[in-house]
Amino acid sequence: MAFEYLSNVPLEEAVEGFIGALRDRGMKPVAEMVPVGESLGRITAEPLYAAISAPHYHACAMDGIAVAAAVTFGATATTPVVVQPRDYIVVDTGDPLPEGCDAVVMVEDLVYAEGDSVEKLGTCPVALYSSVAPWGNVRQIGEDICAGEMLLTSNVRIMPAAMGAMLAAGVQQVSVIARPKVGIIPTGDEVVPPSANPKPGDVMEFNSTIFSGMVRQWGAEPVVYPIVPDKPDLVRATLQQAADECDIVLLNAGSSAGRDDYSSRVAGEVGELLYHGIAIKPGKPAILACAGNTAIVGVPGYPVSGIVVVEALVKPILEQLFGCAVDQSQTVEATLARPCTSSLKYQEFVRVRLGVVEGKTIATPLSRGAGVVTSFVKADGMMTVPQNSEGYETGESVQVRLLRPFAEIEKSLVVIGSHDPLIDEVAQLMHASAPETSVASTHVGSMGAIVAAKRGENHCGGIHLLDEATGVYNEPYLEKHFPHGGVRQVECVYRQQGLMVAPGNPLGIQSLADLACEGRSYVNRQKGSGTRILADYICKQDGIDPSKIYGYDHEEFTHTAVAALIEAGSADAGMGIYSAAKMYGLGFVPVCEEQYDLLVPDYAWDTPMVQALIATLRSDEFRTRIESLGGYRVDQPGRVRRHYE
Amino acid sequence: MAFEYLSNVPLEEAVEGFIGALRDRGMKPVAEMVPVGESLGRITAEPLYAAISAPHYHACAMDGIAVAAAVTFGATATTPVVVQPRDYIVVDTGDPLPEGCDAVVMVEDLVYAEGDSVEKLGTCPVALYSSVAPWGNVRQIGEDICAGEMLLTSNVRIMPAAMGAMLAAGVQQVSVIARPKVGIIPTGDEVVPPSANPKPGDVMEFNSTIFSGMVRQWGAEPVVYPIVPDKPDLVRATLQQAADECDIVLLNAGSSAGRDDYSSRVAGEVGELLYHGIAIKPGKPAILACAGNTAIVGVPGYPVSGIVVVEALVKPILEQLFGCAVDQSQTVEATLARPCTSSLKYQEFVRVRLGVVEGKTIATPLSRGAGVVTSFVKADGMMTVPQNSEGYETGESVQVRLLRPFAEIEKSLVVIGSHDPLIDEVAQLMHASAPETSVASTHVGSMGAIVAAKRGENHCGGIHLLDEATGVYNEPYLEKHFPHGGVRQVECVYRQQGLMVAPGNPLGIQSLADLACEGRSYVNRQKGSGTRILADYICKQDGIDPSKIYGYDHEEFTHTAVAALIEAGSADAGMGIYSAAKMYGLGFVPVCEEQYDLLVPDYAWDTPMVQALIATLRSDEFRTRIESLGGYRVDQPGRVRRHYE
Repeated sequence: MAFEYLSNVPLEEAVEGFIGALRDRGMKPVAEMVPVGESLGRITAEPLYAAISAPHYHACAMDGIAVAAAVTFGATATTPVVVQPRDYIVVDTGDPLPEGCDAVVMVEDLVYAEGDSVEKLGTCPVALYSSVAPWGNVRQIGEDICAGEMLLTSNVRIMPAAMGAMLAAGVQQVSVIARPKVGIIPTGDEVVPPSANPKPGDVMEFNSTIFSGMVRQWGAEPVVYPIVPDKPDLVRATLQQAADECDIVLLNAGSSAGRDDYSSRVAGEVGELLYHGIAIKPGKPAILACAGNTAIVGVPGYPVSGIVVVEALVKPILEQLFGCAVDQSQTVEATLARPCTSSLKYQEFVRVRLGVVEGKTIATPLSRGAGVVTSFVKADGMMTVPQNSEGYETGESVQVRLLRPFAEIEKSLVVIGSHDPLIDEVAQLMHASAPETSVASTHVGSMGAIVAAKRGENHCGGIHLLDEATGVYNEPYLEKHFPHGGVRQVECVYRQQGLMVAPGNPLGIQSLADLACEGRSYVNRQKGSGTRILADYICKQDGIDPSKIYGYDHEEFTHTAVAALIEAGSADAGMGIYSAAKMYGLGFVPVCEEQYDLLVPDYAWDTPMVQALIATLRSDEFRTRIESLGGYRVDQPGRVRRHYE
Repeated sequence: MAFEYLSNVPLEEAVEGFIGALRDRGMKPVAEMVPVGESLGRITAEPLYAAISAPHYHACAMDGIAVAAAVTFGATATTPVVVQPRDYIVVDTGDPLPEGCDAVVMVEDLVYAEGDSVEKLGTCPVALYSSVAPWGNVRQIGEDICAGEMLLTSNVRIMPAAMGAMLAAGVQQVSVIARPKVGIIPTGDEVVPPSANPKPGDVMEFNSTIFSGMVRQWGAEPVVYPIVPDKPDLVRATLQQAADECDIVLLNAGSSAGRDDYSSRVAGEVGELLYHGIAIKPGKPAILACAGNTAIVGVPGYPVSGIVVVEALVKPILEQLFGCAVDQSQTVEATLARPCTSSLKYQEFVRVRLGVVEGKTIATPLSRGAGVVTSFVKADGMMTVPQNSEGYETGESVQVRLLRPFAEIEKSLVVIGSHDPLIDEVAQLMHASAPETSVASTHVGSMGAIVAAKRGENHCGGIHLLDEATGVYNEPYLEKHFPHGGVRQVECVYRQQGLMVAPGNPLGIQSLADLACEGRSYVNRQKGSGTRILADYICKQDGIDPSKIYGYDHEEFTHTAVAALIEAGSADAGMGIYSAAKMYGLGFVPVCEEQYDLLVPDYAWDTPMVQALIATLRSDEFRTRIESLGGYRVDQPGRVRRHYE
């Protein structure tokens, strides 16, 4: 194995080389015996053979009489055969077939002589009007399982029915693959255990929780070590201990530059460094090393990079060397809703939202920020852009590995449009009343809703577009953009827009004009959002030069992001809705009430998701919930204001 | 709710009525708080909001200097701006952005005056050749998560990334749905705990293990009560106790007729009987009752019926009333390989094997015996034949609900043909070396292999067809049945056929002729099997009238089934292979050595599964394993004897 340092090794080569090295050094699964009752979901270590047959005896399959079939031969509807008590034995279902018998006649088929009846069965003769074949109404030995037969091969997951089959086959203990131990070592001076009140500069250590969950899902057992400060001796000692105790060790670096050089040095001291630098993004600084037959994986500190590295480098070890978690994830073909550029240098993993609209699966790339862990929470799939590709254009067909069952994705309401926290509340109410549905929302502003509907990419989207000429909301825009119709404008809410300011409004800000001066700062919404259009409109109306407002170019995608920045003191004001200001306890200077509608393309109207949405909007629960948020007025939500035909 | 007794209620109506009754009586989920670290796979009970933003402070995203972006404005490649030490602060990645700063300049972008260097950073002026925008190289508060935002709705499964997101959002405890308790009561005088040495008549109690695994997979917690004998008072007392302690109680009847009447009486005494008799097969005698807001489900004793009832009646309660286990199982369209008749009276659930052959998904119905638990182990899917349907013809297109991921099924080698235990050994070796492949084998005899290949339904099948005229194996049959070619004849093994007899051959049986007399009994293989053809051939050759052999019509589908019956003393002899006789410790009277080949249709040849099969046949492991079984001779397994083109 060549020693490579700060390389840019293609992923496939690194995985192959690493697994080969580990195999050469003796990494392999260990078997352990567990009681069958505790084996659910475990992986068989060896082929499993039946110890006894099932049934293990010839069992009567009916209540009736057991006979030698031969005594019934010749019986027909016209010429009955009479069987004497000495030639039959009364049996119940499940009884062992008595010696000398090879068939059972059902109690319903017995005919009694006058004066006899079922009560006398056992002592009276009975007449049969049809014969029974040898082994008729008998569950023969081995009908289900023959002793010595292979019930399961090795390396298969044990399911409930198999547990039953094992017990039926006289097997009470099963040899399964011991769960490989995966040690997780968080490091970093700035890293602290999770808390509800972290100090500025504290980086909360939640990677170990994520990685633990991941490896647990793949059939391994996580072992989390305490956070180690950035002292080489301490890191080395913990890594050595973990390498002794575990099959795989994840050394999770802090987020500062230079940390991974330092990790690679320690990994090379405790074991043998094989690779440092893999051609993947995120995750490039990953480290692969062996200490004896223990794998050491240096995992970057940012959670998204970490997840990608653990998935790309640890899962294959569990699969290929321990037989756990054989990847059954499905891949689907999807149409890309936005361009996705990528570096030639790396294989890039891009999280995407998926939605099925008009029978087409649409993939929308999510934030690629290395620190944006919610991109994994929202992700429905993972798209891979190969090394040496510059990425994909809008409308290109891409392959996406599913992170959720496709059946779930098919029932997901794809909301692309203006942001309002009420969308999350709708998602909650809708999912609670129709659990098979879910909501995948992307915040791209009101114009984004129109573009998405034109392209056939959403089921609905929020719009609040003020027409400067008429002062009317939405209608003029829809008439212009859908001259041939094909959409419905659905009433949602009226909401209070205004300037969010620090609590108590200490600077006495009353309008945008108050921000166009030295020493004041603003935080804006992105172009194309209804709120941005409103701010631009007010500037124009009031004759304010936006370039005089510091931060007017500072764009955020949601009302809550704007509110969070004002609360943090990073800006003095920002346009937004009352509910966001209230959520953050901010001051609020009302500007206007606006009409927030939902745009629903005709192609989506009859889907169960849109119908569930409409039902939710019309429900009392929605009214109650929205009114409790503050800053909203509700009239007839769910009503179709106008169908553009 | 109408009281119904021994009815034949359609399943849908029963489920709806039962769930409605339970809801009316107050059945609903209970929430409990668990630490985030222990929440993997649990279902949220409430929508979950971020307590703090993530990042919770403005974090420097690079090592470098923090500045007020404004001081860098105007810097270009030709006109640098010099920043004095008082106007910047040295920062590392992850540091909080210092007061008064709103941007970071990367250390790589700093240019030093002569004599200065990075070591003096903090005390020396630095020149910048480009400006930095406000918030450049800063991870702003809320970049990932804004405080107050909804992270998850209620009723969603918690995945690893969501656990990380919760901790990042300052959430340390999460409200999840408490696992509903499902009590399981086994009953029956004949029912005993599983053992390795059951007595004849003992029915081993493994249903509770199967049901426990099933409800555990759906997110509930099983509680298994000790086996209760058939005494009404004892059953009533246990049912009462379980109803008090659990949310759902499964009362598992014994297998004897009349047991379910008795169960329904007890259920009606402890609670209120709602339905007895559902129009499903298997599972008709199911019982549905309520005791307060506890569900009581009377489950038939046979395991297959039990599994169907638990799936059809208990899963919907967990899904619809507790929000667990929302069914995401996929349905595929498949072509039926055999006819499947069904009663008009019931909705029938039929387990099927699935395989993808030539791009077509083929469904083969498995045994419908109520006691055949292995039919669930082998099943890849469940086909439903609706009430009022007489079933389906061969070649009809049917909908099948998947029990395994389709990705797994696609990689399954479909073996349809003659039975030999070596097929299981091949499956084991193949799966061990190529874990993504598996084997689905169906035993229908050698002629079945030919029929399946003609219809495009298998990837391979075992054949050992002796041509009476020439004494040659297989070739004459393949020439006749594939006049236009399209198949390969692949060498597998030579195997010893003979008469399996009791150990030591106490009756001194030497040939089939010895069985054609009073007091002897035989067990045969099914028509179309190579072994049956051999037996028929010998009878003809030796002038034996098969009708004189008692049991010649008694047909079994495998060598092991024949061996098991001889071992049990149910027959004196049966034709079969040496390895089966050896497995059961039987006597063996050799008859001939036969050539057991594999038939591989051309359409299947290039599939990864067939290629893995050929590689396995050619491996040393195969040779070693087969020789250890006894009764086989191995020459050049995996060699193509002849390609019929």
